[in-house]
Amino acid sequence: MAKEKKLVENITPRDEDFAQWYTDVVREAELCDYSSVKGCLNYLPNGYAIWELIQADLDKRFKETGVENVYLPTLIPENLLEKEADHVEGFAPEVAWVTHGGMERLQERLCIRPTSETLFCDLWSKTVQSYRDLPKVWNQWNSVLRWEKTTRPFLRSREFLWQEGHTLHATYEEAEERTIQMFHVYEDCYKETLAIPFVSGRKAEHEKFAGAQDTYTIEALMHDGKALQSATSHFFGSGFPDAFDIKYVDKNNQLHSAYETSWGWSTRSIGAIIMVHGDDSGLVLPPHVAPVECRIIPIAQHKEGVLDRANVLLDELKKAGYRVKIDDSEKSPGWKFSEQEMLGIPTRIEIGPKDIEKNQVVVVRRDTREKIIVSLDEIATKLRDILETIQEDMYNRAVDFLNGHIDTAVEMDEMVEKFKANRGFVKACWCGDPECEGEVKYATGGAATRCLIEDEEMISDKCIWCGKPAKHMAYWGKSY
Amino acid sequence: MAKEKKLVENITPRDEDFAQWYTDVVREAELCDYSSVKGCLNYLPNGYAIWELIQADLDKRFKETGVENVYLPTLIPENLLEKEADHVEGFAPEVAWVTHGGMERLQERLCIRPTSETLFCDLWSKTVQSYRDLPKVWNQWNSVLRWEKTTRPFLRSREFLWQEGHTLHATYEEAEERTIQMFHVYEDCYKETLAIPFVSGRKAEHEKFAGAQDTYTIEALMHDGKALQSATSHFFGSGFPDAFDIKYVDKNNQLHSAYETSWGWSTRSIGAIIMVHGDDSGLVLPPHVAPVECRIIPIAQHKEGVLDRANVLLDELKKAGYRVKIDDSEKSPGWKFSEQEMLGIPTRIEIGPKDIEKNQVVVVRRDTREKIIVSLDEIATKLRDILETIQEDMYNRAVDFLNGHIDTAVEMDEMVEKFKANRGFVKACWCGDPECEGEVKYATGGAATRCLIEDEEMISDKCIWCGKPAKHMAYWGKSY
Repeated sequence: MAKEKKLVENITPRDEDFAQWYTDVVREAELCDYSSVKGCLNYLPNGYAIWELIQADLDKRFKETGVENVYLPTLIPENLLEKEADHVEGFAPEVAWVTHGGMERLQERLCIRPTSETLFCDLWSKTVQSYRDLPKVWNQWNSVLRWEKTTRPFLRSREFLWQEGHTLHATYEEAEERTIQMFHVYEDCYKETLAIPFVSGRKAEHEKFAGAQDTYTIEALMHDGKALQSATSHFFGSGFPDAFDIKYVDKNNQLHSAYETSWGWSTRSIGAIIMVHGDDSGLVLPPHVAPVECRIIPIAQHKEGVLDRANVLLDELKKAGYRVKIDDSEKSPGWKFSEQEMLGIPTRIEIGPKDIEKNQVVVVRRDTREKIIVSLDEIATKLRDILETIQEDMYNRAVDFLNGHIDTAVEMDEMVEKFKANRGFVKACWCGDPECEGEVKYATGGAATRCLIEDEEMISDKCIWCGKPAKHMAYWGKSY
Repeated sequence: MAKEKKLVENITPRDEDFAQWYTDVVREAELCDYSSVKGCLNYLPNGYAIWELIQADLDKRFKETGVENVYLPTLIPENLLEKEADHVEGFAPEVAWVTHGGMERLQERLCIRPTSETLFCDLWSKTVQSYRDLPKVWNQWNSVLRWEKTTRPFLRSREFLWQEGHTLHATYEEAEERTIQMFHVYEDCYKETLAIPFVSGRKAEHEKFAGAQDTYTIEALMHDGKALQSATSHFFGSGFPDAFDIKYVDKNNQLHSAYETSWGWSTRSIGAIIMVHGDDSGLVLPPHVAPVECRIIPIAQHKEGVLDRANVLLDELKKAGYRVKIDDSEKSPGWKFSEQEMLGIPTRIEIGPKDIEKNQVVVVRRDTREKIIVSLDEIATKLRDILETIQEDMYNRAVDFLNGHIDTAVEMDEMVEKFKANRGFVKACWCGDPECEGEVKYATGGAATRCLIEDEEMISDKCIWCGKPAKHMAYWGKSY
């Protein structure tokens, strides 16, 4: 698989041109590429394998909270899309329309789902009658399509992979609780599995999902100081269900509205992993989402016994449950090291004649390049500790970076200065008027509210733009 | 979730009207239903959970043979679909066309993939240059869309879920070997996981997949004597790769054609499970694909200690790795039994005051209704044995049914008589002319060749229709 071009020289230094560095890493690590369908990606094995690990992890977390998986159609009839006014306004301009099926022109256009609230509500309107039919706590793993004008690998593409959870509840409180519960599931997964910290909270009024009453968002900070909206959980109240005429009768035969949530996590998260953890040598994968946790690289493999011993080690580590591979190709160890680093494999094990003589191997961490000598007798247990340490260290370094890139501003000139340096988030107060946000955005070259801060004392009682009484404190940031 | 309607009375007896029985089981077990998009299904939790188990099993088998998962776009530009002549002829009449994206009319129509050979070949035409880039052994789990006129749940719907594997090889032999290897993976999974036997082999010339040189098929026999084409593996030779101008250079810098395969398994397999194993009380799931392997049903649960002990058992069985649930609702045990049977849950455990006194439970097999008394001390290990026995017995019964429904015919009148009784497959010889097959089909009310029999001595040297020299012996059958 490996080609000689695959060397660190093909990667633009990260701090020289971050956008180019990102593109280079995606290409050289063979994560995805553009297909012949404009704006749509081919998810290649190296990229898709990361997604599979994220899926497995999230899906397990979902199921522990009682989520059931389903699959609803790819196509949505135009009349369904139009049932909820805010929703159609938000999505209609960016959908793809099917107008012909087989040899015939369709009587009604069908769009390829940009998201599936309308399909879930349509199904529930036909099947939910009684309190006994509630709650519905459903999820699907699928792709959606939005006709974006500009695209970037993983971050924004016309078609992307995600999961969309949709739930329906008998009470407002239960639905609100589920919205927040799934928001916390996302938070846990970002921290524990992706080793990515973030700021998080509710979106400002005008930034909410089309049709939602509340949107909770996770905003991770990329290395270039920009925020990435990384996962969202929405509370719809009874707006959507009412629009679809979903009603249920309680034990006393009284008719009620039902309450809805939805929540989504996409392949954007792979972009976040790249941009939070990557370095000048390429990708750096947190062990928990690394399709290969360790690559064994034999040294002087032509010498007698080296390949044999390396393969015994491979079997031993496989048996112990590691995702491990060996590179016994004819390339030089230097090339092999470079490739392992490009792919972000968290550890490599170097094993040569001298190591074998000493009954040891050298484990090299991808994140710090630290070399750790481990006895061959202990490697099958010690490697797990090393991987867990890497996972933890990567998270802690990302936390330090995040904490070091949150500023505060009370006056507009501070705000402008902070964003000139592209440092990260700025905590600032705001009257809640979208027009003021628009002015700040213009003055800072793009910074807007990312999420509200509701559990801290406000640093000012005035809007940073208009000076009128502040309604919110928020994290502001430029974003992808 | 359970409604009172959910009783065996809602199911048409299987031997009275098989088609209606099938529809009833799908509905009452809440496996799937039709959506508002004509011909497209909603896969509901009970149905999708079966698919998840099949996916996990197949995916593991694939990866053990070196398969890597990817994801390619949902949309195919019209010019790509048209590159391989047989392929476009086969699929163009049954695709859905996207003509508008966002607010604009597209310059070129895009179809929703009916299958993705064209996309894989397009990608490889840009990325495969050298022998070092081969083989590609890729698969994707996705949905495809074919604009079918008549549909039936799981068996034929406009959109369906499947996996499509696509591989590219340096030599004819390697590709042919991979085609047969994946065919065997399918055979193993049908037998071992779905407990479904079958006849299998190559398709006759005119029955092959559009563009394929060889198609290998698995043909399972449903309870009504009809065959279901259950999974297929295709060898394309270099036809497709050549049409897409995929060439690679070998070690000596010589240019060569590449060779391709593809292989698919769909949610049809859920239909096969229903129609092979189901009975008058509803679904009967083989334990290996049963989302719930055991449902605990407390007897006289209002009596002191019963629910507590049942819940202790639940925890114990969960801990031991079983997919187990408890039904502690207010319904009567009779209703609960009926529902567990309808859902096809392989075992139920009845636990009441007397059982607790005797430190035992009653395990009831879904397939045979046999009651097995097991000590509470041993249930956590014994239940696995019972489930494995059920799995094995279900397979063996299905094998007996299959073997008892394969006839032979040398003369046409025998053939006609056998198919009048709708017994199953008939082994008969044939000259290979599609016109003769057409005549047989007309005379038998629908029976055609399902697959060729190439490892047995021919039972006749003459075509059963025209009497000219026989070229093939085949299994003939009516089919879904």
